[in-house]
Amino acid sequence: MAELRLDPIQRRWVITGKRPTLPAAFDSGVECPFCPGHEHYTPPSIYERKGADGRWDIRVFPDRSPLFRIEGDLDRAGEGMFDRMNALGAHEILVATRRHGVTLAQFSVEEVAEVIQVYRDRILDLKRDHRFRYVYLFKVQGRSGPPSQEHSCSQILATPVVPGVVEAEFRWSQFYFRRKERCIFCDILQQERESPRRIVEEVEGFISFCPYAARFPYELWILPTEHSSSFEQDLMAPGRASQLADILKSSLRRIERISPRLRMVIHTEPNMDAKRPTEDWWKTIREDYHWHIEIVPELETDPVYLVPEGFYFNPISAEEAAVVLRALEPDSGGALPEE
Amino acid sequence: MAELRLDPIQRRWVITGKRPTLPAAFDSGVECPFCPGHEHYTPPSIYERKGADGRWDIRVFPDRSPLFRIEGDLDRAGEGMFDRMNALGAHEILVATRRHGVTLAQFSVEEVAEVIQVYRDRILDLKRDHRFRYVYLFKVQGRSGPPSQEHSCSQILATPVVPGVVEAEFRWSQFYFRRKERCIFCDILQQERESPRRIVEEVEGFISFCPYAARFPYELWILPTEHSSSFEQDLMAPGRASQLADILKSSLRRIERISPRLRMVIHTEPNMDAKRPTEDWWKTIREDYHWHIEIVPELETDPVYLVPEGFYFNPISAEEAAVVLRALEPDSGGALPEE
Repeated sequence: MAELRLDPIQRRWVITGKRPTLPAAFDSGVECPFCPGHEHYTPPSIYERKGADGRWDIRVFPDRSPLFRIEGDLDRAGEGMFDRMNALGAHEILVATRRHGVTLAQFSVEEVAEVIQVYRDRILDLKRDHRFRYVYLFKVQGRSGPPSQEHSCSQILATPVVPGVVEAEFRWSQFYFRRKERCIFCDILQQERESPRRIVEEVEGFISFCPYAARFPYELWILPTEHSSSFEQDLMAPGRASQLADILKSSLRRIERISPRLRMVIHTEPNMDAKRPTEDWWKTIREDYHWHIEIVPELETDPVYLVPEGFYFNPISAEEAAVVLRALEPDSGGALPEE
Repeated sequence: MAELRLDPIQRRWVITGKRPTLPAAFDSGVECPFCPGHEHYTPPSIYERKGADGRWDIRVFPDRSPLFRIEGDLDRAGEGMFDRMNALGAHEILVATRRHGVTLAQFSVEEVAEVIQVYRDRILDLKRDHRFRYVYLFKVQGRSGPPSQEHSCSQILATPVVPGVVEAEFRWSQFYFRRKERCIFCDILQQERESPRRIVEEVEGFISFCPYAARFPYELWILPTEHSSSFEQDLMAPGRASQLADILKSSLRRIERISPRLRMVIHTEPNMDAKRPTEDWWKTIREDYHWHIEIVPELETDPVYLVPEGFYFNPISAEEAAVVLRALEPDSGGALPEE
């Protein structure tokens, strides 16, 4: 089973170990396992949203090859001066439609709103498990690969540690809050509106803009205009899912015009009911953090993100690698090519 | 001209702006610009190490399309609540041999030692410039592309800020030192030796091992066995370059057997003579930090790192991106494909 290891010098978590092998049928590439009628290729549903005809419209099930496993208790252990824990968590696949080959941007606004509501409900449900410190919801779209790549879906990871990039946001938001007693995101929003060079769109309750220090060309963020640290709490209000669906759909359409490949991630507060969190930034997070969605078009040459930014996944442990590398006795060098 | 922008929420620097276009001759792909006799394709040498025949054996020149530019003073500016500075720095190419198509691992130990001495001398020289806070030396090897990709070379970046990944190491090394008054790397070395499961090789003065929380399969680190925070100072001692050349050559040979593609980076202390550094970790760095070399085999699917880890390079500014995205008026959606 995979485990989480902490690098004590860079303070980053690595998931080390093998992922279970995919069953052959799932990986056959002949049929899309996410299409209706192919449910036998996937594990049983955790959640289904039914259509008027009584069949599922949206379906959530555990990943067949999960990075994190839900069974057992969190087992923290030292290994000399190192820290590890078992990769306890959840890894779910959310199939957003029955229709093969349709992107989220091509859904109707009402359909997008329904997907958003399922996002919200899955996050709320997973956060009821106090072993999990974070729920990370993301989607990748447009990669080449097996037929399931063309079927609109998202991935949900519940993790016993907070992903590095999100944790950095928590830390620095609190750092700003301690000096100003204001949310840094709210301050950025105000400044962007005063000089709207980077704003792309504003609808009721939401705004989208290209962040000042965008990491990637055409990186686009969607923020609620009113302060809220929690995607899932904010989306409880009546009408909110429709408001977000409106700007999410148009943002995805814009990005799709840049590149058919994209990735999207929701940054929300950590699990406020997690067991004994020790980090300082937990204390003021409701005031200093501001949930948002990040959308990035991908180029063919871009890395394939399998894990949240700030995590690494390494299927070969350091001990296994050392065995192989030691055995690769470098030869004596031999003659070098002449100029 | 490119500029550096700070993301205030994640505290990471992004290089934003266009790189100068490569001259056509350089980019033609017909001839390798790094081979002897083709020096006219590249800028004049900054440094040359001559062979017995009076011709260069190792050659360093500025990159034709630099990420950082050496001209002018460091210009820090606010932009509302944001921070930016010009991308002042240096970007050099070190051609390690006259011979085309030979990898560093295929050099003789003496030749590797000579390359290491040039690494040391370039870092020492660039650190004499007090505008630079860090000198980042790395090599990528084995990628497909123009002929110059097959000619052994390294890149040297001098930067006005410390790359994020290295800064994280400085911060957490100091965090450990404050509690223990010991170098965390020295403690790890001692522990690895007591139970040498992850050790790959030990030679006089150096050790190589797979780090406990390796991010990538077969990631390999080389550390001096005696404490030293500075690659360039450590390599001043007589005989040190040969000791390092020995283990560097064999480490590269091992990794080449895993993958012909690899990358290598030297992590050393920041420029201790930099103008008014404000970070706390500068104070104890000579005691708490330990220089090392990281080597990682690359897979075809791995990201192409053009910039140090922790930096991003984005050729399209947020303002330019917003103009394009706003203009991409999402259409009304149209008819959706039927199931």
